[in-house]
Amino acid sequence: MQKHQIKNTEWLWGIHAVREAWLNPNRQIHSLLIIDKNQKMINEWGVGQGLRRPSADIVDRDIINRRLPSGAVHQGVAIQCSAMEEVFLSDIIIKSKSTDKMTIVMLDQVTDPHNVGAILRSSCAFGASAIIVQSRHAPEATGVMAKAACGALEYVPIIREVNLSRAIEQLQDNFFNVVGLDETGEDISTIQKSEKTCLVMGAEGPGLRQKVKENCTSLLRLPTNGPVPTLNVSNATAVALYALK
Amino acid sequence: MQKHQIKNTEWLWGIHAVREAWLNPNRQIHSLLIIDKNQKMINEWGVGQGLRRPSADIVDRDIINRRLPSGAVHQGVAIQCSAMEEVFLSDIIIKSKSTDKMTIVMLDQVTDPHNVGAILRSSCAFGASAIIVQSRHAPEATGVMAKAACGALEYVPIIREVNLSRAIEQLQDNFFNVVGLDETGEDISTIQKSEKTCLVMGAEGPGLRQKVKENCTSLLRLPTNGPVPTLNVSNATAVALYALK
Repeated sequence: MQKHQIKNTEWLWGIHAVREAWLNPNRQIHSLLIIDKNQKMINEWGVGQGLRRPSADIVDRDIINRRLPSGAVHQGVAIQCSAMEEVFLSDIIIKSKSTDKMTIVMLDQVTDPHNVGAILRSSCAFGASAIIVQSRHAPEATGVMAKAACGALEYVPIIREVNLSRAIEQLQDNFFNVVGLDETGEDISTIQKSEKTCLVMGAEGPGLRQKVKENCTSLLRLPTNGPVPTLNVSNATAVALYALK
Repeated sequence: MQKHQIKNTEWLWGIHAVREAWLNPNRQIHSLLIIDKNQKMINEWGVGQGLRRPSADIVDRDIINRRLPSGAVHQGVAIQCSAMEEVFLSDIIIKSKSTDKMTIVMLDQVTDPHNVGAILRSSCAFGASAIIVQSRHAPEATGVMAKAACGALEYVPIIREVNLSRAIEQLQDNFFNVVGLDETGEDISTIQKSEKTCLVMGAEGPGLRQKVKENCTSLLRLPTNGPVPTLNVSNATAVALYALK
């Protein structure tokens, strides 16, 4: 039993990412590595709700470095915990039926874990309910993504779908307005806001793939211009979430 | 003469950053390193307006790696060029007198070059005229910043000021509405847009320093909430620039 659990674990690092995982009742925590001067922090986090949490291992910074991928900016704290339970599109669709307003974000081949992490963070801050990615283009580096998400990974599930066009159809069948961000679209500030929205973002450079673009209910663009008219994809997503809120 | 010029040079890398520097008539280019498969790209960029540009050195990727800081994501192209000429606050204030609308961004202790680069990019895309930073907290890593700025470094000058509160006063004396982003402020969507705006952003975590905050004409906040209510500073800046546009 224990062996099986250990198999589905992941390492997370960085103060905010670790704190939120530590306090997430859906996570089992297998170990917590922390440098001496951060000890007090853990006491402040505390645990409640009957959560079983291990004692922290007080270690040198180098020990943490060795457990994590090279270059991980861990801020002196790392946690080994169970992976999040998978969430499916059908879960979100069911949830949407009992809520007045819902926004979700779909990422078409946006795979950089720093960007996906920052998008999780903005999604959480602007109240989006989930992020949909394509299974075979999903970001792999959970730790890097979780660090950039600053704890938002605990609150905004990532849904992996084989076929994004099919997912768009399912969302449309369930009354979602599926809005693709594309430079050929209408100015986003002119949009009439809808109750159920799925914002679809393409990768920087190629943008949305043709098939995905054709399936969107409408296309919108940000009012940017000048010699460098495009934003970083996480910046563009944050602006679009604000505009559609 | 040549020696003096070489002293004030910097290395830039990444396709967009190098392309815009290459085409910037205010830059002298000392050398261009490029991997074989990128050669065609340079021909497409071309040069005009009587720009003197050296021939490219076709080199192995390793040679570029060795010239640049460790970990630089150079995409097979790097350039050694003269640094940009310094721009002063007085230049921007003079320019503001002959324009109907102007937005500038002030960064209070935001120093991470990736963030500052992404902010340059959003500033350029949303038409901001300059970024003001504090001299002793200015980002040092020009190459990293230029890469994240995707070419926007050529268009949006970075002004270094010793005292940001003094700079705020100068801007207010010249009819700028100085807006600080702070969680205690009014919802940014309620703001009446002004012709001359300076948006002041603080570092993630500490936020605006007290003195800077007190000097702002008004404080505004983004309509974020939930368990992770803050955005990455470059995301927050992009949203605020959109909201104030």
